Order: sequence, then C-alpha cells, then structure tokens
Amino acid sequence: MKNKIRVDANKICPLEHAVNTISGKWKIPIVWHLQQGLKRPSEFFYHIADINRRVLSRQLKELEESGLVVKQVVKLKPLEVEYHLTRTGHDLVKILWQLNAWGEGLLKNE
Amino acid sequence: MKNKIRVDANKICPLEHAVNTISGKWKIPIVWHLQQGLKRPSEFFYHIADINRRVLSRQLKELEESGLVVKQVVKLKPLEVEYHLTRTGHDLVKILWQLNAWGEGLLKNE
Repeated sequence: MKNKIRVDANKICPLEHAVNTISGKWKIPIVWHLQQGLKRPSEFFYHIADINRRVLSRQLKELEESGLVVKQVVKLKPLEVEYHLTRTGHDLVKILWQLNAWGEGLLKNE
Repeated sequence: MKNKIRVDANKICPLEHAVNTISGKWKIPIVWHLQQGLKRPSEFFYHIADINRRVLSRQLKELEESGLVVKQVVKLKPLEVEYHLTRTGHDLVKILWQLNAWGEGLLKNE
C-alpha cells in the first residue's frame, strides 16, 4: 500500500511514512498477533494463513528496523528467539483496534 | 496491502476487511485530501503526485462502493461532479489523524 500523499517534494508526510511502515502483506497481521501474546516465529506460522518463512523473517526484520518490535534470544542451543512489541508497536496496536472497530461498522453496513 | 489475519476461514476479521478497504495506492491520499476540502477530480490531480485519470476514477468508484464517499452532480452541461466524505469516511479520517501522529513519532525516532 505504498502511498503518495507527498505535500511538498522534500517534506515527508507523516501519514505516508506511517502507512509505508506498516505496508507489506504480513506486517499488520504480525503486529496484531504479537499483541495477542504470540512471540515465536513458529507460532506466527500456525496463526497467519499462507505466510512463508523467508517473507516472515524479512518482515520481522523490517518491523525491528522500524522500531515496532524487539527480538530477544531466549535460548542459545538450539537457538530460540522471541519477539515483543516496543512502545511504538503498542501505540500502533491502539490505532489498529480502532481500525478493527471501523471495519466492524463496514461489515454491518454491507 | 492485502492482508491475511484470517482467524477462522469463514469469519472475516474486521481489521483485515478495514485494511483491504483502504488498500490501493491512492485511497488514503484521496480520503485525506477530501477531508482537507478537495472535491473535484481535477483538484486531486493537482494535489496527489503521479496519479492517473483511469486509476483515480476506479479508486473513487471503489471508495463510493465501500460507502466512504458520495458523488454529487453539481452541473450537467458540462458535467461537473463533486465528492464528499460520508460519515464512515469521516470516521476513517479520525483514525488517519492518529496514524499521522504515530508517523510523526516514527520520524522523530529516526
């Protein structure tokens, strides 16, 4: 959902930046499931239909780089990692809950 | 930004429905500019970089079908139309303002 709300060529519109940060087929589902308690990549596989390992790890990496999630090593051998939402990630979740409620309204009107 | 948060195959997740409704490169920019007072397709051309006529009319049509905007004929000859946000459209704008603020926070952290 790359978006072009560029008001002025060299000034990035925060909304455009926000939308581009969460664009990508799986980012919202990953964030959504993190706030519901999922932590491990293997759990995402179970809960998010059609996701594949390479895409999942890339989108987790991008979410980390954007500051929405942090990765924690919980065991070294075998390596086990967990992901947690950052404050910024939790702030996004609050907005996603409102979008969820807005979506319920859409479904009722259909 | 087609999203797969399908919790249970035959139950559509409202968040997924909301995200799919506003996915499409230009829908958020169009809604955003409507709430800033733009009404006519020609105005969108001026304010939204890189948009083309065919895509703009299709996305306006889809926004109409989703119940986010209404089209009004203001003059018959030559035909002039205006678009306005519905209540559902205005409700989305409230969420977009929060996403905009969240985006400002992201930009500050970078």
